[in-house]
Amino acid sequence: MSHPSPSGSRLDPYVDTYAARTRGMTASEIRALFAVASRPEVVSLAGGMPYTAALPLDAVGELLAGLTARAGATVLQYGSGQGDPRLRELIGEVMALEGIGASADDVVVTTGSQQALDLVARIFLDPGDVVLAEAPSYVGALGAFASYEAEVVHVAMDDSGLVPEALAETLGELTRKGRRAKFLYTVPNFHNPAGVTLSAERREHILEICQRAELLIVEDNPYGLLGFEAAEPLPALRSWNAERVIYLGSFSKTFSPGLRVGWALAPHAVREKLVLASEASILCPSSFTQAVVAEYLTTQPWMEQVKVFRELYRERRDAMLEALTQLLAPLGARWTTPQGGFYVWVTLPAGLDAKAMLPLAVTARVAYVPGTAFYADGGGRGHLRLSYCFPEPDRIREGIRRLASVVEEELELRATFGGVPSTPSDPGAPQTQSPSPDLS
Amino acid sequence: MSHPSPSGSRLDPYVDTYAARTRGMTASEIRALFAVASRPEVVSLAGGMPYTAALPLDAVGELLAGLTARAGATVLQYGSGQGDPRLRELIGEVMALEGIGASADDVVVTTGSQQALDLVARIFLDPGDVVLAEAPSYVGALGAFASYEAEVVHVAMDDSGLVPEALAETLGELTRKGRRAKFLYTVPNFHNPAGVTLSAERREHILEICQRAELLIVEDNPYGLLGFEAAEPLPALRSWNAERVIYLGSFSKTFSPGLRVGWALAPHAVREKLVLASEASILCPSSFTQAVVAEYLTTQPWMEQVKVFRELYRERRDAMLEALTQLLAPLGARWTTPQGGFYVWVTLPAGLDAKAMLPLAVTARVAYVPGTAFYADGGGRGHLRLSYCFPEPDRIREGIRRLASVVEEELELRATFGGVPSTPSDPGAPQTQSPSPDLS
Repeated sequence: MSHPSPSGSRLDPYVDTYAARTRGMTASEIRALFAVASRPEVVSLAGGMPYTAALPLDAVGELLAGLTARAGATVLQYGSGQGDPRLRELIGEVMALEGIGASADDVVVTTGSQQALDLVARIFLDPGDVVLAEAPSYVGALGAFASYEAEVVHVAMDDSGLVPEALAETLGELTRKGRRAKFLYTVPNFHNPAGVTLSAERREHILEICQRAELLIVEDNPYGLLGFEAAEPLPALRSWNAERVIYLGSFSKTFSPGLRVGWALAPHAVREKLVLASEASILCPSSFTQAVVAEYLTTQPWMEQVKVFRELYRERRDAMLEALTQLLAPLGARWTTPQGGFYVWVTLPAGLDAKAMLPLAVTARVAYVPGTAFYADGGGRGHLRLSYCFPEPDRIREGIRRLASVVEEELELRATFGGVPSTPSDPGAPQTQSPSPDLS
Repeated sequence: MSHPSPSGSRLDPYVDTYAARTRGMTASEIRALFAVASRPEVVSLAGGMPYTAALPLDAVGELLAGLTARAGATVLQYGSGQGDPRLRELIGEVMALEGIGASADDVVVTTGSQQALDLVARIFLDPGDVVLAEAPSYVGALGAFASYEAEVVHVAMDDSGLVPEALAETLGELTRKGRRAKFLYTVPNFHNPAGVTLSAERREHILEICQRAELLIVEDNPYGLLGFEAAEPLPALRSWNAERVIYLGSFSKTFSPGLRVGWALAPHAVREKLVLASEASILCPSSFTQAVVAEYLTTQPWMEQVKVFRELYRERRDAMLEALTQLLAPLGARWTTPQGGFYVWVTLPAGLDAKAMLPLAVTARVAYVPGTAFYADGGGRGHLRLSYCFPEPDRIREGIRRLASVVEEELELRATFGGVPSTPSDPGAPQTQSPSPDLS
């Protein structure tokens, strides 16, 4: 078979037979650029890849050999749709670290927490349904909701996370329009992409609002154990209310994303539906990768490894913030100060457009994700997300240097053309509040 | 948290908020019985579990240790949504064994081939759409189609597989009703559950009919390399027509189901949509299990292992057919004779109902899957599926002995009550043709 022409120009004989939902499945506009951005000469501050090279690889290898020799016929076999009971017990212990008391029977193991998002969307979202989500919100969640033809309504957040008053106001507006949201999707800890954390007081306030409005909360918490400052993580929303919250967790950031092991903890009736949906979707999660995670949790000092990750990411965050202060603050950019996790959210000087600027940045050998990727409504043009999780500190500093030179050029260009923004910020986009500046 | 009452009796506060599609996601009526059937004293002829204990587990363990020590940081990392390019090349070589010439660029790696089924359903099926499938058809496919609210229309099959004339007739009926099928779903080799194989002549005929009707074919082929008789597998439908066929493959039966590695090979435009749908669903398949499969294919004599499996399954099939001939033929039961794969499809003596009989069978310590599981329209009551893949030959013979005693009791009961069937066969079910008897 040969494919002489690029796919876009070919005739697709099935064009009239696709399901309506495929209209919500669009290729990222920045995908082509990302292929370029993955070249070694480009400093990528774009991807959210954990630094897996810091894992104890030899110990993991030995663990795998022992596991396969000892229990290979079982771990290479089909398993239950809900997931391995032993791993579900261990997941209960992991969640206890954030104050959650749960039965292993209410846990569903998924192929990464992305599958948990997909399953939640699948069992709750009819076309046209409303989902509330922070502004900005996790791009993978927006993609999952779009693929079920839902409408995402963004709710403002600031440096203390989702704004309760904004949530109450949005709910009121929806009611006045005769509409009702199916759930609130939120990333309370070390938000992707905003880098902020929902304060303890706001957690209680938001739970009250949702309880009153009978609104389900989907609490997505992949970064909760990766805090840099506090000794203890903040209690999860789920720790206060077992019936109002579906909690999503993941081993992708505390251990390995390549194993694709995440989970959902849900009220019992919802959990039953999640299992049915998962069985229709994948039959069962991998017995093998579940056993690897269970073995890792029980035979390795996994929380010590999490501390190694925390130190490593804290050092990289510091390198990034320092470089930003030195090089981007003088140009008028602002950013959030993450207390954990992987991301800094940058607000460009007024008038600059992060998406329009990306090709220039890639030419200057630095990559980021433009803010528009994190809005379902066209917002975010004046923002970008920087990740400090993967590159070493020197590369981070070099990346910020390159980014600063691009921003400087853009500003000069604007000055040359009489101060008129060549690429207007957020043209026609809603004025949803974004995390406020936090110059450090 | 405590769960004092059984889930069914609890109030579900979200009962009014589920998506319409959840109505198609129902728990299998036989699930509760299966929990009992998994007790060691029960001979299970129900599940389709490959005999993973026959794998070279020590060699696999060593391979895993080496892979992790050598490339751990990469294989434990996120990967591409479409799947690892190296594995996709190797999948091309596997498919070449069934006459398929394909570019690795048109392969999408999935979390088992069940996810491929889900993705195909997701991109093609709107609620109410028609899918054609054999009568009977694979239960996992029926579940996937139901979860997208599609209507499955069964097409008759016999000992040579799907009947071309029945397909043409069904297409004609749909056209007369002003309806159109989205695709034909078929398992041409060693059918699950029917145990039959589509003949070479019929393959060409069915392709012609679908070509004329502009009907897409979804060819699901997990068992193709597990033939007992012929030296070479029959050419896949996909080997004749690259634009009309989506081909689904799996390593679950040739290597390990616990790794959840399957794939779809699709026309290019369809492949692009499958990748987008997969990214929305799971971000990317497991880098780790993909690397394990790639390493296994390149460092182990994997086709020799497939031959080991073939011999093992052939011996078990022979044990099952012999016991059936000895014990169930005298009672008036009939069955198909599989030339490969895992399953025998049994037609009970007239008037017996496999589903109604299952509790008695489990009490007699033997389990099977009632035929109704494989019909979307209520058919199949007079049939059951037996699997010979997992139990050793002696257990298979014992299982058939127990089954024969249950059938005998049922027949006696019927005779006692004057020949009136206590549980009528297929009451009100469509008279779709099922594989015909093939007494051996």
